[in-house]
Amino acid sequence: MKNLDPARLLPTDPESQKIAQELYDDISALPIISPHGHTDPAWFSQDLPFPDPAQLFVTPDHYVFRMLFSQGISLDALGIPRADGRAVESDGRAIWRLFARHYYLFRATPSRLWIDHALSDVFGVTDTLSTDTADAIYDHVADCLAQPEYLPRALFDRFGIEALATTDSALSSLSDHAAIKNDAWDGRVIPTYRPDSVIDPDAQDFAANLATFADLTGEDTEDWRGYLNAHRKRRLFFKQLGATATDHGHPTPETADLTPKDAADLFHKVRSGDGSAQDHALFRAQMLTEMAGMSVDDGLVMQVHPGSNRNHADAIFRQYGPDKGFDIPRAVDFTRALHPLLNRYGLDPNLTLIIFTLDETTYARELAPMAGVYPALRIGPAWWFFDSPEGMRRYREATTETAGFYNTVGFNDDTRAFCSIPARHDVARRVDCAYLAWLVASGRLNMSDAAEVAYDLTYRLPKQAYKL
Amino acid sequence: MKNLDPARLLPTDPESQKIAQELYDDISALPIISPHGHTDPAWFSQDLPFPDPAQLFVTPDHYVFRMLFSQGISLDALGIPRADGRAVESDGRAIWRLFARHYYLFRATPSRLWIDHALSDVFGVTDTLSTDTADAIYDHVADCLAQPEYLPRALFDRFGIEALATTDSALSSLSDHAAIKNDAWDGRVIPTYRPDSVIDPDAQDFAANLATFADLTGEDTEDWRGYLNAHRKRRLFFKQLGATATDHGHPTPETADLTPKDAADLFHKVRSGDGSAQDHALFRAQMLTEMAGMSVDDGLVMQVHPGSNRNHADAIFRQYGPDKGFDIPRAVDFTRALHPLLNRYGLDPNLTLIIFTLDETTYARELAPMAGVYPALRIGPAWWFFDSPEGMRRYREATTETAGFYNTVGFNDDTRAFCSIPARHDVARRVDCAYLAWLVASGRLNMSDAAEVAYDLTYRLPKQAYKL
Amino acid sequence: MKNLDPARLLPTDPESQKIAQELYDDISALPIISPHGHTDPAWFSQDLPFPDPAQLFVTPDHYVFRMLFSQGISLDALGIPRADGRAVESDGRAIWRLFARHYYLFRATPSRLWIDHALSDVFGVTDTLSTDTADAIYDHVADCLAQPEYLPRALFDRFGIEALATTDSALSSLSDHAAIKNDAWDGRVIPTYRPDSVIDPDAQDFAANLATFADLTGEDTEDWRGYLNAHRKRRLFFKQLGATATDHGHPTPETADLTPKDAADLFHKVRSGDGSAQDHALFRAQMLTEMAGMSVDDGLVMQVHPGSNRNHADAIFRQYGPDKGFDIPRAVDFTRALHPLLNRYGLDPNLTLIIFTLDETTYARELAPMAGVYPALRIGPAWWFFDSPEGMRRYREATTETAGFYNTVGFNDDTRAFCSIPARHDVARRVDCAYLAWLVASGRLNMSDAAEVAYDLTYRLPKQAYKL
Repeated sequence: MKNLDPARLLPTDPESQKIAQELYDDISALPIISPHGHTDPAWFSQDLPFPDPAQLFVTPDHYVFRMLFSQGISLDALGIPRADGRAVESDGRAIWRLFARHYYLFRATPSRLWIDHALSDVFGVTDTLSTDTADAIYDHVADCLAQPEYLPRALFDRFGIEALATTDSALSSLSDHAAIKNDAWDGRVIPTYRPDSVIDPDAQDFAANLATFADLTGEDTEDWRGYLNAHRKRRLFFKQLGATATDHGHPTPETADLTPKDAADLFHKVRSGDGSAQDHALFRAQMLTEMAGMSVDDGLVMQVHPGSNRNHADAIFRQYGPDKGFDIPRAVDFTRALHPLLNRYGLDPNLTLIIFTLDETTYARELAPMAGVYPALRIGPAWWFFDSPEGMRRYREATTETAGFYNTVGFNDDTRAFCSIPARHDVARRVDCAYLAWLVASGRLNMSDAAEVAYDLTYRLPKQAYKL
Repeated sequence: MKNLDPARLLPTDPESQKIAQELYDDISALPIISPHGHTDPAWFSQDLPFPDPAQLFVTPDHYVFRMLFSQGISLDALGIPRADGRAVESDGRAIWRLFARHYYLFRATPSRLWIDHALSDVFGVTDTLSTDTADAIYDHVADCLAQPEYLPRALFDRFGIEALATTDSALSSLSDHAAIKNDAWDGRVIPTYRPDSVIDPDAQDFAANLATFADLTGEDTEDWRGYLNAHRKRRLFFKQLGATATDHGHPTPETADLTPKDAADLFHKVRSGDGSAQDHALFRAQMLTEMAGMSVDDGLVMQVHPGSNRNHADAIFRQYGPDKGFDIPRAVDFTRALHPLLNRYGLDPNLTLIIFTLDETTYARELAPMAGVYPALRIGPAWWFFDSPEGMRRYREATTETAGFYNTVGFNDDTRAFCSIPARHDVARRVDCAYLAWLVASGRLNMSDAAEVAYDLTYRLPKQAYKL
Repeated sequence: MKNLDPARLLPTDPESQKIAQELYDDISALPIISPHGHTDPAWFSQDLPFPDPAQLFVTPDHYVFRMLFSQGISLDALGIPRADGRAVESDGRAIWRLFARHYYLFRATPSRLWIDHALSDVFGVTDTLSTDTADAIYDHVADCLAQPEYLPRALFDRFGIEALATTDSALSSLSDHAAIKNDAWDGRVIPTYRPDSVIDPDAQDFAANLATFADLTGEDTEDWRGYLNAHRKRRLFFKQLGATATDHGHPTPETADLTPKDAADLFHKVRSGDGSAQDHALFRAQMLTEMAGMSVDDGLVMQVHPGSNRNHADAIFRQYGPDKGFDIPRAVDFTRALHPLLNRYGLDPNLTLIIFTLDETTYARELAPMAGVYPALRIGPAWWFFDSPEGMRRYREATTETAGFYNTVGFNDDTRAFCSIPARHDVARRVDCAYLAWLVASGRLNMSDAAEVAYDLTYRLPKQAYKL
């Protein structure tokens, strides 16, 4: 395991490292709670082998292919499918070699940490990936994938996952989740209600989505009350299949609190296609408050992650579609934007609202001050580009003093890359222990408190916050 | 003193810690200069015992009760008075037990550091606060409070306070300050001119406040020139009772520099209640520049702390009033906003303008570049949510390289919690020494310079900046 | 060399320091690549002695005199020339003494690091500058300057500069560069195309500049196409004298992508003086995209550094002109602003667009995410107020995890202070090695990779990015 320093990410001065190691040893083997992610439920319902190393590590992971693309490697050569179905590289080994040749680009990135960890711990690879080792590692991983102990359910069990939530369109049949539930396998894989496609008037095929939404629920989604009822029914359906949360990926954190009449009028305007860009934004804003109200009623935990300018390069979106690494963050203003929603529901003990941000300046300035006083509000972990050692460290340093540990919700991996799940949780555990050790070493926390906090951040808080 | 590591907040590597300890030992016992805070001058004029431990540590400190509230504990149960006078918990022991039971929420927060320090150093408590120790500590502190050496003046002397400024409404009679001045006690407690209630047209009872302002000064405050003269007279009155500074808590840092005629017209508009929200904002902006002009004339140091969205939760404001922990920061733009004021007075050697921020992104981007060149401008210390070890470290790291140490003004505690004053100053001294030690250890500052800087930051700079 | 700790800026814990020292020893003597700066090409074409110590260290360096000014020292006393030619202090020794007396103001600033390094390494001064040592150091430096080994070319060679780019107006004759090129001296000093004065309608004498632009190129700069051709010709002229890059100092990062007809109409409006402030801004925005298009054609690397509010104090600008330390940064929004340009050219392999920022919040939020995916985009180093140890550390910590090392371009010194060039590059090398050592010590990078990265950041990346 040449690639993995056993003390990696822990403090480097001996005394602090010792403290961190002790904290880490206590919690490193705790079960994984994965309350937010993007793995495919079909993996677990069907339990078929993963195809090949490139399709496991490269093509599904936009963190990986965006970096390669930034240095001039074409998406075609990396096997990223074209929207029009035109042929792209389909030879896994060729893709893998290209990846291996440029592996130096990932130095000091979290991708490198995760991939080294997965190759080493999941597949037992002891060499560093490079041009020289590419073929041997490819063959080894491919061999593994053909074996039963590398099937999705076997890995799920081996990774020690206690619960894993996927993210699912409000229009999904959830057939895989139903199959998992009805199967003898006892792995807990649950859906999350993600209604963006029936909430955002700018979504592709919004009108058609509303029609499907009506079909699925038997509600008249051309009527404001029917539309809201459709949400209520689908939320219940998700809940019956295990869901404990909703997830909302809006361009901004704007919320609104219109009168029922104004909200109904706005709905009819945007539904009929007569809405301006401002109307669309206002509708999204109003719907966050509606969703909060439904969470008060049905108990689903509400997650919001705003502030990404999606599909920044028009040409890439046209040729390859969404999720190609071109979602770029922008500054946001939570203090003003969340005011309508918080004013309506922020003091309600039945609401748990978890906010994620891609604008780190809001941690200390806005989110920690708000989460440190509003009972409904919790700060989601550092994520996306900040799901990284430095990102996590900045997160703790910026939020703890104002919001404490207990207004945060533990880690989530948010990933499509299944084999990176243990690696990602391990990084979070190490960085949290490093932070706690620093607090202990500098006399700000005693050791027994630190040990309890380490346990809480790893295990108790995500279970509690997500009602798992 | 189990709770207090003697090397707390100093660097953890042995060499740097030794340097920091040496710097700290030299300045740890220096007198406290407290040029900005919110203690009650009546404490010092009347010198009566503090009522009970809960009323000393919990109810007056919104840092404390906001955290408890964020985890679902009601303000009523914490004894926070209702605006309508409805009964709330009044049993100090019950409040204290509730606080003790949830003391774990404060792990790694500055509140925890301050309270541990106050309990230990001021009251000699050796146990950690918890459910088990709550009653014993309550009894012990209550006993202390009944003794003469725990009266306000005795504590003031014991804390080594050389000067302490309170913050007082422009409409205050300053009767307590007059009483202190005329008393044999030699403690230096001085007022600060805070005119928000007669400057901000959005202030409650603005018209009535202007009428009172007229009564107090004999000026016609319905006239622009009379209104300005009323300020001049009140500033002089404050100055005669020892004030050396003014303080301005505006929603934004906007300043303006209108012609006298436009300013007069604007005043009449907002005074008569005909002003729009923009007019109100412009009037506040103009008044900052007017206040700067008066500071040039009368020498009062001017403090501005903008950028808080006050009373974010309407329901809390309605039920409990202001200062309940719901003041939430927002992003500000000092570079543009301060331009009118600085362009008018920023080069004037008679002006000292101290700017505080709740938006840390402005330290390195705006405040340090401006304070590093404008003779009138100084950067106030890290405060509010950033009056914390990490907040202070970020402050020094972000401001020193561009503005140096000598365009900053030392620490201020800004507190209503009297017993936390020594703790807060001690934290600042430790964090500054830790920062200086890191500069010494990394070859950026020599030891004798560091020692001089430590003294300056602790003692010389606040005295000089505030003319104390 | 009392002033220079040999391990300065390296980590303070022994293990990390050892790693950093090893990395630094390997790259400390590499040649200096200086692809962006403001030295005077006449120094190298004429090779005359520098006049006196004050004119070498104080009067040309606005980092130095702005700090002195911030503490009440007049620009006149520092010998800063008045716009109207009125007499200012001209006695170098008097200026030097004033500087020495206030040298304590620079404690822990990069200016102090650079000046200590230059005095020590370039001039062999062993004492710290102070009132006591001012005269002796002045005399010693003045003596040195009279000797041939302190002539500009001799210093250039001694500093180990492999290539140095100046910044030159689009209207410059480049006569000094031509003289250098035609001279036997083999130092590589090249120009950079800086066309702000013929692009920004708000520039002083914009109309007259366009007339000169026409004279220099034989193009009709009253016509949109002629105007663009004039740029093409001047770019070629610069390229023929060695230029490899352009540089653009816009107030904001706004870009636009108008139709040719709209662009031509806009040009005629702003050229004729009929443009509004918005028109001027839109024209600057359009011209960035035009410049990117020309870079695709002629291969010149494009540098953009937006976000400074220039000449913030009107009185100083009126009395002393630009570049007097009153350029103050503001927040910028790259994600939105660069979209038009990137959408047009961001995927083009022939474009290299290097973005600099004065708003550090954009590193992790915007620039690293964009540079980590757009092939044309690179992140320029920390600069201006952030060309400092803490600034560089924050830069690496905020950009590396998302953009890696290979979407950055190494260091540039951006200086007018010739003797500070070795000092500035040395600081950058030390801080990068400290950062790499921390990655190695915490198990995130292995030693051989770190050594390769140190070499790349110091030498290979700037050569490659700037095509030197």
